[in-house]
Amino acid sequence: MTEFRSIDAATGQASGPAYTVDGLAQVEAACAAADAAFDAYRATTREARAAFLETIADEILALGDDLIVAAMRESGLPRARLEGERGRTMGQLRLFAGVVRAGAWQQLRIDPALPDRAPLPRPDLRLRMIPVGPVAVFGASNFPLAFSTAGGDTASALAAGCPVVVKGHPAHPETGALVASAIAKAVAACGLPAGVFGHLVGPSNELGAALVTDPRIAAVGFTGSRAGGLALANLAASRPVPIPVYAEMSSINPVLLMPEALKARGAALGTAFVGSLTMGAGQFCTNPGLLLAIEGEGLDAFVAAATGAVAQAPAQTMLTTGIGNAYRSGTAALAGADGVEQLAAGEPGEGTACGAILFQTTAAAFLANPALAHEVFGASSILVRCADAAELTAVLKGLEGQLTATLHMDEADADLAATVLPVLERKVGRILANGWPTGVEVCHAMVHGGPFPATSDPRTTSVGSMAIDRFLRPVSYQNIAPALLPAELRDDARGDGAPRLIDGVLTL
Amino acid sequence: MTEFRSIDAATGQASGPAYTVDGLAQVEAACAAADAAFDAYRATTREARAAFLETIADEILALGDDLIVAAMRESGLPRARLEGERGRTMGQLRLFAGVVRAGAWQQLRIDPALPDRAPLPRPDLRLRMIPVGPVAVFGASNFPLAFSTAGGDTASALAAGCPVVVKGHPAHPETGALVASAIAKAVAACGLPAGVFGHLVGPSNELGAALVTDPRIAAVGFTGSRAGGLALANLAASRPVPIPVYAEMSSINPVLLMPEALKARGAALGTAFVGSLTMGAGQFCTNPGLLLAIEGEGLDAFVAAATGAVAQAPAQTMLTTGIGNAYRSGTAALAGADGVEQLAAGEPGEGTACGAILFQTTAAAFLANPALAHEVFGASSILVRCADAAELTAVLKGLEGQLTATLHMDEADADLAATVLPVLERKVGRILANGWPTGVEVCHAMVHGGPFPATSDPRTTSVGSMAIDRFLRPVSYQNIAPALLPAELRDDARGDGAPRLIDGVLTL
Repeated sequence: MTEFRSIDAATGQASGPAYTVDGLAQVEAACAAADAAFDAYRATTREARAAFLETIADEILALGDDLIVAAMRESGLPRARLEGERGRTMGQLRLFAGVVRAGAWQQLRIDPALPDRAPLPRPDLRLRMIPVGPVAVFGASNFPLAFSTAGGDTASALAAGCPVVVKGHPAHPETGALVASAIAKAVAACGLPAGVFGHLVGPSNELGAALVTDPRIAAVGFTGSRAGGLALANLAASRPVPIPVYAEMSSINPVLLMPEALKARGAALGTAFVGSLTMGAGQFCTNPGLLLAIEGEGLDAFVAAATGAVAQAPAQTMLTTGIGNAYRSGTAALAGADGVEQLAAGEPGEGTACGAILFQTTAAAFLANPALAHEVFGASSILVRCADAAELTAVLKGLEGQLTATLHMDEADADLAATVLPVLERKVGRILANGWPTGVEVCHAMVHGGPFPATSDPRTTSVGSMAIDRFLRPVSYQNIAPALLPAELRDDARGDGAPRLIDGVLTL
Repeated sequence: MTEFRSIDAATGQASGPAYTVDGLAQVEAACAAADAAFDAYRATTREARAAFLETIADEILALGDDLIVAAMRESGLPRARLEGERGRTMGQLRLFAGVVRAGAWQQLRIDPALPDRAPLPRPDLRLRMIPVGPVAVFGASNFPLAFSTAGGDTASALAAGCPVVVKGHPAHPETGALVASAIAKAVAACGLPAGVFGHLVGPSNELGAALVTDPRIAAVGFTGSRAGGLALANLAASRPVPIPVYAEMSSINPVLLMPEALKARGAALGTAFVGSLTMGAGQFCTNPGLLLAIEGEGLDAFVAAATGAVAQAPAQTMLTTGIGNAYRSGTAALAGADGVEQLAAGEPGEGTACGAILFQTTAAAFLANPALAHEVFGASSILVRCADAAELTAVLKGLEGQLTATLHMDEADADLAATVLPVLERKVGRILANGWPTGVEVCHAMVHGGPFPATSDPRTTSVGSMAIDRFLRPVSYQNIAPALLPAELRDDARGDGAPRLIDGVLTL
């Protein structure tokens, strides 16, 4: 048994409650309980599971201001941001309640028997998706509510019918414990086995490793650093039974400033860019860490406006001392790199507070040094000045996988945009025009994912309703008597509202 | 440059044409061509892609009897089986043509903008699935047509819009070269870039390793041994950019003989079982390698009938000398294992021909020795006699992941069946009743997959229309002008027939 303390992000000092860590025994207990709860939980009706998700949302709200105050202290994020994030967290749970009720996630398919087919009859075949099993979730420090204990990974896994064991993020133990208590209340209120949700407390990587390698865990959701995600992916791949890891890791989110847009509104774009860059102290997965522009009219106005806005940006408290230190060393490395010029820096800050920094370089220098394309988590960005469209395309083709790419464009940029779109499709999960990547809508058509290393698995998303698919796998039933079939696959289940593919024809 | 020769399965001697192997240069050339062809191929219309798949089917048929004769010589499989397999291969291509046309695989989603939403407007968001990129396919020796050069992996990857590079199976180079020539003709006839399909010839593992580690390859399909699949999965996971491997590997396909079914028709089940066991010399992924029964009436009759049928089974030519040798050593190991009794053996055979063998053991002995549950590829099976339902369930819970589980049951077995079904759902991809696992229907509701080590990725299937999903990933488009949007995501695309999820509502 050891103890650890919550840290105040603003001071870097221990504060708030102390937590008792009983080491690996808690992993064993949580995984055993999750495994024991799995069959009962996956057998719940869609309505029961949806109501459970809604109850979690209600219980989170019922925590009241204690939750907001704890999250403010532990993350350094302001009240308005955290109140909004709480709403997002509840909204996600309710979105998945609706998804569970609608039932399309089951991918029901029925190929009726063809007893008279020659040369061989066709048997009756029916397919549904079932949950994969208990899921381990590692939340992010930068969204202590929406991407943490009851965040998108937890909500989508519970929606799929998987028990969840969360490894609480050590940067916000009090926030995590409060949310975990809300989920536990919902579990009890809905009459579900306690093992449907488990919460592990402790600062160590050993705890996470034990969780990922526990044979009862069937999949992993993770949001965090590239090093952390890769470590978990390697652990999962080297298990006797490998399991999928959905790790959302690193992205510098290229923003393309197209010639006509720059010409029309270079200065306005520069100001708006800094608004996106400095939001949440730059601590977004979708932070615009890379600007790409072709030399031409309006680029100087963009640079002047952006430089001015960065210079005036106040220092902001970083989530943790470690993140602040990594930001300082990452930006120092950029500042010292060949061919890189520091354009502007905000208030330098001290202790756990850091300021925004904007760099610029040439396409040639950027292409020559892959380190310039590494994520620096925080409000750091680098403008790459390209001589022409060919150089711009070369930079895009050389990029690693990204969560997003943004086009600032006018109608007259359409030809260039049409040229780069196929390149971007192969690099990113979301392409957006005339906005900023830092807003990630929770909806059906969202992809918060992308090719490696943006994520470890580009076949999916961690935000939006499609995230439920990560925790499902198909099972086929051949010539199984109706009484033994899952209810949703019986002929008489037509009234239940879930779409079914019957002999290849989608039927509502 | 080296040469290698096709082998006659019946004699184990080199015969047929010689093939020139130009080593790793062909990998480089094929991957470069596939990568160069990708954007043009994925931009083809659904109709064009469907017509291409149908043209491949036509061109395979146009190869005429040369194809059947080559496959007979190289695989040792009989004419009727290979003619049926050719039909299956063409049927798969046509199934995927229909799937491509129907368009549901695109998973189109549209969340229209909500400009007046408070506190923040919602942008316009649209999602579609796009192909992942060039796919490497490793075919199986046991289905030289349906699971090889133009088999299910190739058909589903081409359907998804991915160029394919096949590593030809060294056990059937002439068959593979003929099919590759048919695909190349279809590529040319449809006016597609030649790189849409590549075919690598050579016996070495080095060739396959170079293919899987080529940075332009985005996914791998494999059907074969556990050792082979794991080797590819490890290579793929250790790439700088890891990629998914869909390896269908090993399965012993438990068949549960339930008490009432045994009582009613023990002898008939015994005879029918041996029919499934010896089909194709037992060389099916879904071969019934494990029988489970509770001691009781009818079991002796089953054993007597099965023993009699095995004893009369003629030796059959195995696909390769290596498979024959592995079968002999695998069955010898079973025969020598503690607590295992050999019940019957068919004609022993000589050279490349082997006979069926049936073993029996107790649940206790089976549980004590995991090696008894390893696949022996060929017509080998082991009956595990359980004292009661509890022991039967313990054996099921101890099994590794499987492709299939079969229940032979009567109505009066329903209670026991209801007890084991949830156990089986967690272990297998397909559960069937009162049939044999060796028939794998190509349809929409088929799952030919299952938990590790049946496959490396249980979230999918390698047979049936759902297999297309393996080679797709989602991309989201935010506030992209209609002129730049993919046609199927424009508002005016409603007439094109593909279902769309609009604001969460499925719309046909």
